[in-house]
Amino acid sequence: MAPKSEKMKARLPRGFVDRAAEDIRAVDEMVAKIRAVYELYGFEPVETPLIEYTDALGKFLPDQDRPNEGVFSFQDDDEQWMSLRYDLTAPLARYVAEHYERLPKPYRSYRCGWVFRNEKPGPGRFRQFMQFDADTVGTPGVAADAEMAMMMADVMEALGIPRGDYVIRVNNRKVLDGVLEAIGLGGEENAGRRLTVLRAIDKLDKFGPEGVKLLLGEGRWDGGKEGEGDFTKGAGLDEEQIGRVFGIFGYKFSIRDPAHGQRISGFSSPQREGPAKLEPDVFYEGVLELGDMARLFKASGYGEDRIRIDPSVVRGLEYYTGPVYEAELLAEIPNEDGVVVRFGSVGGGGRYDGLVSRFRGEPVPATGFSIGVSRLMTALKNLGKLSTAETVAPVVVMVMDRDTESLGRTQKMVATLRQAGIRAEMYLGGAGMKAQMKYADRRNSPCVVIQGGDERARGEVQIKDMVEGARQAAAIADHSEYKEARPGQVTVPEGELVAAVQRILNAQKAERGR
Amino acid sequence: MAPKSEKMKARLPRGFVDRAAEDIRAVDEMVAKIRAVYELYGFEPVETPLIEYTDALGKFLPDQDRPNEGVFSFQDDDEQWMSLRYDLTAPLARYVAEHYERLPKPYRSYRCGWVFRNEKPGPGRFRQFMQFDADTVGTPGVAADAEMAMMMADVMEALGIPRGDYVIRVNNRKVLDGVLEAIGLGGEENAGRRLTVLRAIDKLDKFGPEGVKLLLGEGRWDGGKEGEGDFTKGAGLDEEQIGRVFGIFGYKFSIRDPAHGQRISGFSSPQREGPAKLEPDVFYEGVLELGDMARLFKASGYGEDRIRIDPSVVRGLEYYTGPVYEAELLAEIPNEDGVVVRFGSVGGGGRYDGLVSRFRGEPVPATGFSIGVSRLMTALKNLGKLSTAETVAPVVVMVMDRDTESLGRTQKMVATLRQAGIRAEMYLGGAGMKAQMKYADRRNSPCVVIQGGDERARGEVQIKDMVEGARQAAAIADHSEYKEARPGQVTVPEGELVAAVQRILNAQKAERGR
Repeated sequence: MAPKSEKMKARLPRGFVDRAAEDIRAVDEMVAKIRAVYELYGFEPVETPLIEYTDALGKFLPDQDRPNEGVFSFQDDDEQWMSLRYDLTAPLARYVAEHYERLPKPYRSYRCGWVFRNEKPGPGRFRQFMQFDADTVGTPGVAADAEMAMMMADVMEALGIPRGDYVIRVNNRKVLDGVLEAIGLGGEENAGRRLTVLRAIDKLDKFGPEGVKLLLGEGRWDGGKEGEGDFTKGAGLDEEQIGRVFGIFGYKFSIRDPAHGQRISGFSSPQREGPAKLEPDVFYEGVLELGDMARLFKASGYGEDRIRIDPSVVRGLEYYTGPVYEAELLAEIPNEDGVVVRFGSVGGGGRYDGLVSRFRGEPVPATGFSIGVSRLMTALKNLGKLSTAETVAPVVVMVMDRDTESLGRTQKMVATLRQAGIRAEMYLGGAGMKAQMKYADRRNSPCVVIQGGDERARGEVQIKDMVEGARQAAAIADHSEYKEARPGQVTVPEGELVAAVQRILNAQKAERGR
Repeated sequence: MAPKSEKMKARLPRGFVDRAAEDIRAVDEMVAKIRAVYELYGFEPVETPLIEYTDALGKFLPDQDRPNEGVFSFQDDDEQWMSLRYDLTAPLARYVAEHYERLPKPYRSYRCGWVFRNEKPGPGRFRQFMQFDADTVGTPGVAADAEMAMMMADVMEALGIPRGDYVIRVNNRKVLDGVLEAIGLGGEENAGRRLTVLRAIDKLDKFGPEGVKLLLGEGRWDGGKEGEGDFTKGAGLDEEQIGRVFGIFGYKFSIRDPAHGQRISGFSSPQREGPAKLEPDVFYEGVLELGDMARLFKASGYGEDRIRIDPSVVRGLEYYTGPVYEAELLAEIPNEDGVVVRFGSVGGGGRYDGLVSRFRGEPVPATGFSIGVSRLMTALKNLGKLSTAETVAPVVVMVMDRDTESLGRTQKMVATLRQAGIRAEMYLGGAGMKAQMKYADRRNSPCVVIQGGDERARGEVQIKDMVEGARQAAAIADHSEYKEARPGQVTVPEGELVAAVQRILNAQKAERGR
């Protein structure tokens, strides 16, 4: 034992948190439901380690441009740099490239795991968090992207989120790329500015159109007014350029179902051919791909109440090359500060045709998305969609005498309960009767088992119903209620221990169900 | 896409591995069974992050004495050192110390997670591996240690390991501590030498008595003979001291059940009192604690075929202060080189009364154990105790035409199968019929669904049984078998797709069961 003066402080570095039983169980339940949907779609689990070579991960963080920022890195003893993974996509790209020959193609896979960001933590912003990803590698067709969007919609409903309380929004990067090319931001030399534009648009929800216009232009003060907070430098677009970018959000692509001539998505498309052609080819490619996806959604029975084409979706990552998609919760639920707000994005992704190719020297198209597990769990918890109270706490068998023989007898009772599948524990502390009751209370035990000397002589055990006991204590004044209530305490022969405990558990379960 | 000359090499740092579907499913199944036992014992899940302050973790690695060796460490931007956890015990000690006031005490908890060792990797020795721990904090009584040993025994049987194929071996560090004190190795100044003795004894299985005697004495050459391989410096004990240490393994403690006067463990105890008293008090304390534990095992119905007192168990960690225990697989199974050997330890632990106290400045007794997940999984796999083949691969719906309308129709069929709970996928690649069959074969699909133009005109679908198809191809010469066989291919109306696929899946399942 350390002397008081020398003792170490028990604390975690900023941005890291412990997970208590309730959260672990809630995440397990949620992850199992998501996994069931992925499996149904034919996806297979595959996992990579948490550490990779830094160069293999590349630098594709949404909010970081500077090298060696944003990731936890360290040198191996052969001087090579390694990093903790910051997402699950970069390691998957490395995995697929390494095992390319022996994988079935297209290759559908999923994985859930911890990722790390070496960033300034904030409220709801951690340096270690969990992602749950699904990816299809090896097919260029938008049918794969459409499948992703439909799978996300199915995941939302599998989690109990009613139709109308979520929407999967779909867009295509090529539309924006086309506009950027048209306003003179094409080419390798403008990659940095394009990224700034991308991240600006991604903040539409957060800062509104005015804020985004500032970020596309000269820049924006965090506080909203000049001199307030930090200044974020903008993309330096002029007013006309900003207007063209904003024009995208107003586009109405009219996508007609060729079979029925019916309008199936709320957009009217600009002309592709002829003298009115205003944008580069890549723009029209994007529009046509969106049309194909919309038709696939319709043919597969996914209406616009579930999946919607929305030109304002961009996703913050620079590596997307085609369709992008995002799951948004429309339900209005309280945030960390108790203010009721629309919850927003709980996951998203897109097509990243360049990531695997970095290793292969040949094109390897891929598409996939990522669910922010903690964020989605918070939403589900607030919506009351997680049945975390279902795990019943253990029955506590009290310890009356501490000699080995008595402990052995008590241990035997506990073992009997466990053999019947009932969670049970022997009290292991050194305290008396009252403290043991308090312990059982703190554990939230359904009942306690007591065998004092008298009971033992008669071959009996006493069982105290903790739920009923608490209620009787509260309602002691109301005599009629008292009479109707289940007895808070029973004494039964030792041989009936399991049956009597089971009766109490069943009665409590029935009561919770009411 | 990177030009061939510039492309990056897809590879992992040494000692890290990817996990394929089969291993992930096997571990999930195993972990679920272990968790069910822990829950039954009343243990609650709690998890800590993978990163901690280096000083909070302490240095308790079994094979490392030098500071900053053996762990992955990096500095935070405030210059404080952080490390990836190297086990789950040190972080738990930090957690309990930090949340001490609000935890029920004794506090039973469990957790499963990745740990990291910055060591030279070798065969079966990784730098990232998974541990599954259970701990009870806040009680000094050996009843808690006995519970751990019994829980380990129950875990083994829950995993399907038959009684007789495993044993939980139990010892007490105080016995060894007493002998070391008696031969002049007591006190703080001999801590290093005591640790060397500990690690020497821990190698009894590996090097045999002669090797351990060398490690207790001058030292040992890795190759066995002088000059062969590396030299490991020994503890420097003389022959008499070595004899005293080895004497422990020969002790026969006779522990009698006080109630029945019956001998319940195969050891005869040296006298505690009187003129024959040869060892320091701590030695006898250890012997008495072992006696108490043996009596608890007996009273709870755990025979010596499940839990055994064994004075040669020491466990390599220096922080154990009392009972130590270890789960050993007795079954003889092939090792990595195909040689049939006794598998050995798959987990173990002990009492560590000092770890939480480092933070608290008051005594906080604790005991717990750790299961090496990958190692245990390897053993179970070799023993045929993991039913990994149970996950049926998805039905593949083939793509005949690639226009959006046809893709939509195919997608609709896939959705219908999924709605019926059948794993199904649409082929997403660009290849023809033959390549799609090859893909389904590689995916190990139970059957494929095909709708060509003719079938579509008639409103029908074709279903090919892949298992039966392969068999027919193999047995084409045997006419009687051919006739008895289920047809390898059926054509049914579109509306009967689900029913027909389900029939094939059921027939295949029944066949696997035979």
